[in-house]
Amino acid sequence: MREVAVVGVGCTRFGELWNRSLRDLVVEAGIEALEDCGVGGEEIDALFVGNMSSGQFTKQEHIGCLIADYAGLASFHIPSVRVEGACASGGLAMHQAFLAVASGYYDVVVAAGVEKMTDVSTEDATDALAAASDREWEGFAGATFPGLYAMIARLHMHRYGTTREQLALVSVKNHANAVHNPKAQYRRNVSVEDVLNSPIVADPLRVLDCSPITDGAAAVVLAPLDIASEYTDTPIRVKASACATSTISLHDREDITTLDATKEAAKRAYSMAHISPADVDIAEVHDCFTIAEICAIEDLGFCAKGEGGKMTEDGETEIGGKIPVNTSGGLKACGHPVGATGIKQIVEVVQQLRGEAGKRQVDGAELALTHNVGGSGGTAVVHILSR
Amino acid sequence: MREVAVVGVGCTRFGELWNRSLRDLVVEAGIEALEDCGVGGEEIDALFVGNMSSGQFTKQEHIGCLIADYAGLASFHIPSVRVEGACASGGLAMHQAFLAVASGYYDVVVAAGVEKMTDVSTEDATDALAAASDREWEGFAGATFPGLYAMIARLHMHRYGTTREQLALVSVKNHANAVHNPKAQYRRNVSVEDVLNSPIVADPLRVLDCSPITDGAAAVVLAPLDIASEYTDTPIRVKASACATSTISLHDREDITTLDATKEAAKRAYSMAHISPADVDIAEVHDCFTIAEICAIEDLGFCAKGEGGKMTEDGETEIGGKIPVNTSGGLKACGHPVGATGIKQIVEVVQQLRGEAGKRQVDGAELALTHNVGGSGGTAVVHILSR
Repeated sequence: MREVAVVGVGCTRFGELWNRSLRDLVVEAGIEALEDCGVGGEEIDALFVGNMSSGQFTKQEHIGCLIADYAGLASFHIPSVRVEGACASGGLAMHQAFLAVASGYYDVVVAAGVEKMTDVSTEDATDALAAASDREWEGFAGATFPGLYAMIARLHMHRYGTTREQLALVSVKNHANAVHNPKAQYRRNVSVEDVLNSPIVADPLRVLDCSPITDGAAAVVLAPLDIASEYTDTPIRVKASACATSTISLHDREDITTLDATKEAAKRAYSMAHISPADVDIAEVHDCFTIAEICAIEDLGFCAKGEGGKMTEDGETEIGGKIPVNTSGGLKACGHPVGATGIKQIVEVVQQLRGEAGKRQVDGAELALTHNVGGSGGTAVVHILSR
Repeated sequence: MREVAVVGVGCTRFGELWNRSLRDLVVEAGIEALEDCGVGGEEIDALFVGNMSSGQFTKQEHIGCLIADYAGLASFHIPSVRVEGACASGGLAMHQAFLAVASGYYDVVVAAGVEKMTDVSTEDATDALAAASDREWEGFAGATFPGLYAMIARLHMHRYGTTREQLALVSVKNHANAVHNPKAQYRRNVSVEDVLNSPIVADPLRVLDCSPITDGAAAVVLAPLDIASEYTDTPIRVKASACATSTISLHDREDITTLDATKEAAKRAYSMAHISPADVDIAEVHDCFTIAEICAIEDLGFCAKGEGGKMTEDGETEIGGKIPVNTSGGLKACGHPVGATGIKQIVEVVQQLRGEAGKRQVDGAELALTHNVGGSGGTAVVHILSR
């Protein structure tokens, strides 16, 4: 396999972007990524687009083709493919793009992610997102994603003594990080009291424990490592790209507080990169709900099982802490356009590794991990990148 | 890149399968493919699932994970990804699976395709399929796929003198082939008169010019060529796998009677396989409408532009003719579960190249081509396989 590098990154503002369509968003992110590395449209060999549900959200499928066309690439006839794995669609698109370059078949490829979620009502969006669970055994029985993660939270609190305040501190930290991210949906601080007093969604989770509904897109340009310096002075190496699945339904898991797909994808990624969790300097993890970040830092091996709440409370995941987590603001505060999230995570760590993250910069970050989850843990994707 | 072979194939019966769900169908096809080559679940390294629109058809996304789970593979945590490019989703899944093995990252992978289309009304299915066109510029303006292909047919007839009877002969041939395919949806002969007297759908296309709405799934097992003989006595080599896009909308094409994505994907595939169109012994092409097969055999280079109708009338695409086309019965008569079609095409040519196609066997077939299209030609995928 050839070694692969990220040479360019781009990202739209995340938010409720009423005046922008799906195609506008992804083209904007793509152009920013291409300009970042001086790559012209005629140099792109293939496009991989992560997207969960443009069919349900906008009644549009075939968006690989649509996006290549609206990006002005139709005359080059570039291969373009949509990749889907619920909220892990972006991470999976990155994996496909990695394989495409690693194989030697394609040289310069774009991995993009996009979701346009605000063209439907909040109720319809929640229903569309429930398509990431097992519709027949979870969705039709009334389980929504806040409900599924609330069950995880409740058991985690019961079993490990994780407190309501520790959950809130995830949100507080991620909002604080988002203040310094110009692309973030919510650039404002929240307090523990704000979280605890926000409306209940699914006990014990409240509004400020939940990632929002978001429009947005992100894109990265990949190239073989040995020619990456033609495109950028600061190529970022993709040291590992690994995926894993588990049962789609929560009720089929042995232990719902452990996302075994995360553990397995992380194990494969650490092995591929020849590193251990202690070597990771920064991480973007899948905090679709506050409890999800606590499970993630445990399952990724940053702390022992059950210690995620305490690790958060001790400030070890803050910028300046042992392993800064979600410097972008995470899904919670940067926003969660579901198909775009996995790519936005790559954009964030690339900016950190380049030293271009502005006021949220983690000094000396050399090794970064991204962690993207589909559903309640049915799919997990882990990437490890280095300077 | 490593060389890649198909070592196992499986396919469900195609049809209106009221008593089977999406997950049932793909698991059945997968098991048949695994049993075909004696591969156990624990040996599978990754799964790629082609599917156009499970979200619109069954309100279920995340089917990569769902299928891995229901196939009993959750405990192996295998990576599983859904790949989408409208009706070319199956072909694109095959391409991703090819890249996965060629890269050296994965060894034994399954490429599957599935669509469950009969859980919604015919009107809703037609609307869901319109998501493969540009919803904003074609769908909302009232264009359906029969309407788009009817325009192609009308211009082809006007410009090249293609006759209504020649269109009908595509359907007659494909129905005749389907009679001998136990997996086909319509195992009955139709006459030119039957086609010409069938109800009009979009002038000049009639019901018997159109592929049906179908439930079905297909699966193939890929492995590196150098170890393929561990799994089968008759490995089929994947000599080329190539994709291309064009404009998603018909009105943006220079010439709507030419699918330039087909021409470009074919050019890339012929170059990769070091062959010319004249070397091809059999082909499965994307006959979503009768006119589509005529355009396909022209754009693939089997005859000159404008000669597709005559080539059909002369019997050159029949079994026994110069290049037998759609020995499976094609999309028209075998059926068209949109995400499964691209994989079913691979299954058919593998059976032909192995000499296992029963009464529809083409004697001495050594080199086969498959051609899968998304939308009205926005995406095309071409594979070339050999004994």
